[in-house]
Amino acid sequence: MAEHYRLDASHALSLMQNGDLTVEEYAKSLLSRIKERDHVVKAWAYLDPDFVLKQARALDQIPAEQRGPLHGVAIGVKDVILTKDMPTQHNSAIYTSSEPSTVDAAPIITLRASGALIFGKTTTTEFASVTDGPETSNPHDSTRTPGGSSSGSGAAVGDFQVPIALGTQTGGSTVRPGSFNGIFALKPTWGAISREGLAQYSITCDTLGLYARSVADLQLLAKVFQLADDKPVKPTPFDIKRSKVAFCKTANWPKAGPGTQGAWEKAKSILEKQGAKVEEIELPEDFAKIKDWHANVLAGEGRTSFLGNYLLAKDKMHSMLHGHVENHTKLSRKAQLESYDGCARLRPVWDDLASKFDAVFTPSVVDEAPVGLGSTGDASFCSMWTILQVPCLNIPGFGGENKLPIGLTLVGPRYTDEHVLWVGKSIGEVFAREGGWKSKLI
Amino acid sequence: MAEHYRLDASHALSLMQNGDLTVEEYAKSLLSRIKERDHVVKAWAYLDPDFVLKQARALDQIPAEQRGPLHGVAIGVKDVILTKDMPTQHNSAIYTSSEPSTVDAAPIITLRASGALIFGKTTTTEFASVTDGPETSNPHDSTRTPGGSSSGSGAAVGDFQVPIALGTQTGGSTVRPGSFNGIFALKPTWGAISREGLAQYSITCDTLGLYARSVADLQLLAKVFQLADDKPVKPTPFDIKRSKVAFCKTANWPKAGPGTQGAWEKAKSILEKQGAKVEEIELPEDFAKIKDWHANVLAGEGRTSFLGNYLLAKDKMHSMLHGHVENHTKLSRKAQLESYDGCARLRPVWDDLASKFDAVFTPSVVDEAPVGLGSTGDASFCSMWTILQVPCLNIPGFGGENKLPIGLTLVGPRYTDEHVLWVGKSIGEVFAREGGWKSKLI
Repeated sequence: MAEHYRLDASHALSLMQNGDLTVEEYAKSLLSRIKERDHVVKAWAYLDPDFVLKQARALDQIPAEQRGPLHGVAIGVKDVILTKDMPTQHNSAIYTSSEPSTVDAAPIITLRASGALIFGKTTTTEFASVTDGPETSNPHDSTRTPGGSSSGSGAAVGDFQVPIALGTQTGGSTVRPGSFNGIFALKPTWGAISREGLAQYSITCDTLGLYARSVADLQLLAKVFQLADDKPVKPTPFDIKRSKVAFCKTANWPKAGPGTQGAWEKAKSILEKQGAKVEEIELPEDFAKIKDWHANVLAGEGRTSFLGNYLLAKDKMHSMLHGHVENHTKLSRKAQLESYDGCARLRPVWDDLASKFDAVFTPSVVDEAPVGLGSTGDASFCSMWTILQVPCLNIPGFGGENKLPIGLTLVGPRYTDEHVLWVGKSIGEVFAREGGWKSKLI
Repeated sequence: MAEHYRLDASHALSLMQNGDLTVEEYAKSLLSRIKERDHVVKAWAYLDPDFVLKQARALDQIPAEQRGPLHGVAIGVKDVILTKDMPTQHNSAIYTSSEPSTVDAAPIITLRASGALIFGKTTTTEFASVTDGPETSNPHDSTRTPGGSSSGSGAAVGDFQVPIALGTQTGGSTVRPGSFNGIFALKPTWGAISREGLAQYSITCDTLGLYARSVADLQLLAKVFQLADDKPVKPTPFDIKRSKVAFCKTANWPKAGPGTQGAWEKAKSILEKQGAKVEEIELPEDFAKIKDWHANVLAGEGRTSFLGNYLLAKDKMHSMLHGHVENHTKLSRKAQLESYDGCARLRPVWDDLASKFDAVFTPSVVDEAPVGLGSTGDASFCSMWTILQVPCLNIPGFGGENKLPIGLTLVGPRYTDEHVLWVGKSIGEVFAREGGWKSKLI
């Protein structure tokens, strides 16, 4: 069997659309990869190979002219997103039923209606809310975490088990696994993709996230999800030469380890060599407050979000979630509201600031994926952008002291998701070529 | 059979908790009321009397000391809220399956864990998003609309079919039916109750709403949902005498018909007679922009929310929802973001302004429920408060030219839901006594 699992979605799609590859053959290739690798990676919370093949054969029956823009594209789904034909267990001791959810989350409806092959459910931390890892390991080093909370989605894409997977992000749950697994990860603008049918933690922050191994694949998804900027991006590739690129360390920079520090300097010099005008920028002082505001908003909104399950079966929940419901931080409504209003005030300030550049980079992570599966790592570098509700694209390409992947995040003003992908595509190609890290899995 | 259906939830609850009434007897009384009346009112999208009784008998088996704070309280659920044992059809031609959803929305988990009897699903407009009414009629006059989109919930509570029901509000979908059906309706602070498992239209506006025939019942629910203000309300009743009460007509006042105008003047004179210091206040000019901002936010967020179903089965959807997905208003992202930021800027302005008063009143509706079931009416007076994300309590007590109910809305600063209920209880009693409208259904 040809190793079709190695292809990104865009390539597999064109083969399937042209009739050069059946969805069934493609699915079999992915399933064989999973069979070969997943006893180590353990990316899947639910996967029924027979059901996958049954769906694949049904897709093959669709006449060529009726095939959707994602015909046969295999997509892993984080197990906090409802799927009508598979269970949704949230990595929670409360939700262990293997019954399908009977309801599709809104993004799943969109993907299915576009011809996607919903492959299975990927592992998550409990309710996508804690940092205690599931048993999933990093495909590049099985002693290390793949990150979280979108652990299985990040690992499955990094390991070539599926070309695309869905995550969610409330702090850094999409971008961090993106960096740890050496893949592209898009956290779109808040509100740009429906959250109906997703687990809720923070209504101000929760965002569906998208994983792929190429920006072209993310652009394919962006088109399906209609992430339309006001200003359409040019059909020609983004030209790095003479572009204005900002590097923004943020107040969290002292946390950056040698891997992220190295990637930072290397990225700047690569882009300068390409002719970009690179400058380091500092955010206005108020932005340093966002870290606490983000924590307040999660505490205040978590108090609401976990109440039901707390009343239902407190004993089966993580103590951090108890803490939210019981308001352990004694957060006042006043502080919660000031946190909302503070972030709201800074969103347009950020948009204005970022609009002055073609691209703004910021760290994705503290460093390489840490050893151990107990903790999924630190989201410090991501949470500000999540609550600013701006598009974030993790671009891989760099390696740390242990040759594990490290990415940087391209951030933009709100609702410039297409622009971020367009710029990220050109820059991603250069980082892949010159950044120094390449996946050994292929 | 005693007419227990006439009781509010608090009274029925105390009988059931004391063992003076079984849940089964209570459920039978409600079912007999429904049987008697619902061929006219048509409040239910799904109701299985046998299943209700089975659940009621199960609740009766719970030993007294293990009974929850809502033991046996019957609750109608708007049919856009997932219920694990009942279908969720959204009044959509796409979702006609009679299969249960297998998943409970977060507020349903909370209610069940508190001992509530989830009674059935109440009618809604399509996806709680359009104003084309379902077949539900106003219990006070079957030629008139009960309002919407929470049509069945408002009508069922107004008609004594259940004491409590859940609605949702994105524009005026909770408050308007509250006014039209002559009942109390609380739209809490945005975010104060989880929305997980609810249909999504606007993530900035969508809020779970609560209906009851007494404020005591809403206080019972507020306790279960932990709607805790920073400053606990006093255990003694709110004293209207010497209280400061503002009346705020808003820029929509020219729309107010004779019924609302009459209620307005009467409310002021009743409160003045009670010794309150009443004054009319005007909002800063910028607040008049909120109407357009609200429309923009719904258009921009509706574009996202309805995409999946549009791709799945456009032909089975209302044309207004097509319009959102296709962006018929040519709304730019810039205008959408300016609308977000404008509202965000005014939220703390409103909070400060409202904090200067014990209560602020504003109209709930244009007038009495209009004749005809085709349209559920006008949400003009509600949408500003929804997007300001503040607590709104419809207080009934007044009548219009056709002796149909008219309420006024008590609004407060964000996260003062308990305060609003506390003040609303005292004022609600006076309005009921002196406002001139009484339900003839009992």
